[in-house]
Amino acid sequence: MRIAIAGAGAMGGRFGYMLQKSGQEVFYIDGWPENVDKMNRDGLTIEENGEERTIPVRAYHSKNIGPEQADLIILFVKSMQLSEMLEDLKSIIHKDTKVLCLLNGLGHVRTMERFIPRKNIYLGVTLWTAKLLGPARVHLSGDGNIELQNIAPEMTAGAEEIVAVLNQGGLKAKYSQDVLYSVWKKACVNGAMNAVCAILDCRLMDFRLVPEGDIFIQNIIKEFAWAAKVEDQVELDQTAILELIKFSLDPARQGEHYPSMHQDLVQQHRRTEIEYLNGYVWRLAKEKGAAAPYCEIITILTHGKEAILGVK
Amino acid sequence: MRIAIAGAGAMGGRFGYMLQKSGQEVFYIDGWPENVDKMNRDGLTIEENGEERTIPVRAYHSKNIGPEQADLIILFVKSMQLSEMLEDLKSIIHKDTKVLCLLNGLGHVRTMERFIPRKNIYLGVTLWTAKLLGPARVHLSGDGNIELQNIAPEMTAGAEEIVAVLNQGGLKAKYSQDVLYSVWKKACVNGAMNAVCAILDCRLMDFRLVPEGDIFIQNIIKEFAWAAKVEDQVELDQTAILELIKFSLDPARQGEHYPSMHQDLVQQHRRTEIEYLNGYVWRLAKEKGAAAPYCEIITILTHGKEAILGVK
Repeated sequence: MRIAIAGAGAMGGRFGYMLQKSGQEVFYIDGWPENVDKMNRDGLTIEENGEERTIPVRAYHSKNIGPEQADLIILFVKSMQLSEMLEDLKSIIHKDTKVLCLLNGLGHVRTMERFIPRKNIYLGVTLWTAKLLGPARVHLSGDGNIELQNIAPEMTAGAEEIVAVLNQGGLKAKYSQDVLYSVWKKACVNGAMNAVCAILDCRLMDFRLVPEGDIFIQNIIKEFAWAAKVEDQVELDQTAILELIKFSLDPARQGEHYPSMHQDLVQQHRRTEIEYLNGYVWRLAKEKGAAAPYCEIITILTHGKEAILGVK
Repeated sequence: MRIAIAGAGAMGGRFGYMLQKSGQEVFYIDGWPENVDKMNRDGLTIEENGEERTIPVRAYHSKNIGPEQADLIILFVKSMQLSEMLEDLKSIIHKDTKVLCLLNGLGHVRTMERFIPRKNIYLGVTLWTAKLLGPARVHLSGDGNIELQNIAPEMTAGAEEIVAVLNQGGLKAKYSQDVLYSVWKKACVNGAMNAVCAILDCRLMDFRLVPEGDIFIQNIIKEFAWAAKVEDQVELDQTAILELIKFSLDPARQGEHYPSMHQDLVQQHRRTEIEYLNGYVWRLAKEKGAAAPYCEIITILTHGKEAILGVK
């Protein structure tokens, strides 16, 4: 299968590497010229278990994609780049090209539908992680998995085919009957903790010090649960998600970790994905004449911090 | 008149100095031993217009007040110290001792009523400022005024007497028919901008960069207006307050200024007065079965930052 990885950062590098090793024909598309140039010149370098391996790869800048098409595209761009990337990918998409979205956050299917027939859209959630060390250089550690599903009900066979390809690459994929639940659950966990750790400049475990922090978490969960129901008829289990969040605050688990928006905003002064998490819930509430004040304030404060830090 | 200044910081120093100069008998009560000792030993030093003047003063530690009583007590402690200070002041209060509260924030009359007969309680708002440079050393600059009112309707004469005494000291006092309006207005302006500048670590003028920041300000004002009405039958003019806040964000006005909670929390790692501003509105809403989500979240985040910074 000819597979395009759109977004050749840490996760794109991991997936491309694992798929290529299993015998698939993989090529990469990315918007960062240094990354693309180095991949073509020197290959992709993977660090894993203290070892380093470099494999030859083929990469294109997203504004200058060569004359080839893909049977499967796996999307790994940042949420705010999705629409532009799909525009750039037009030349590699044929009428049966499957497109799998593994981005965090909400609203991506809506965006994809503007470019891709619904029958070719697949949605997934992954727990794999990876770290980009520099252009064409990725560190792998830990274990992961993927669940994914077809968006068009009749395309289950297509999803199962993708699952099989990913599993050949050791990516532990599973067909899901209910991927939207997982997408909303992940968004809700991120929406509860991610931005607030950036605003308060703290690790997940530090949030346990916040007096009445539970009120905060519970209200965010409530707003996401409302949005999941209204938008996708998904009924989130609020109690289970609260437990999952408390679990993630444990220093023995992910507690030591600065979540991604802290990395983006505080550490790197980059724009956050807030509009695809809390911001999405807030805009949806406005659209429906409802209120989501927790998501609203967190979105305003996050954009506020972006603006004050001069992030473009 | 024998006047006790309870809280001999910057503002207490200013008021005491100006009143003493006009011929009143003033003494000071404070909880900071170094400050009290230096006042008694070397006097109170005032810097103003590039000049320095030291006057002899009499001061007591609040846990060790001498055998004298006051005709008027002016309260200048931090909100969270009010109750303890009133407890300490018992020995200097006789049945007609007038007590004037010039603290920022909400709920102080309720606290005072636990210690002082309602007829002796006076409430005021002042625009005077001052800066504490160290123990017994205060810098004065700028102009100010005071408005004040009796809490018990029959005590107007008492309020006018205080006004006269303050005016002899050049403190530009005015009898107010509606001091509660001014107290709520000031609390609302502080409630809208003070904590959020601490949370976002920015000056007033920087808040103008926050996209959709107006939504934030308007909602805070709305919640304070609700509270003012419910608690004190005060009808805040929300449009006028919004204009006043925008005016205060102007770099040509107070915009360059880091508001007091930024000074407390970010600069000095001290506890904030959030419970007497946004926190007060939130607790009131809860008590009345209503919601004040903006004040609620800002209170939680402010306490959160206090906790994360390890502020006691």
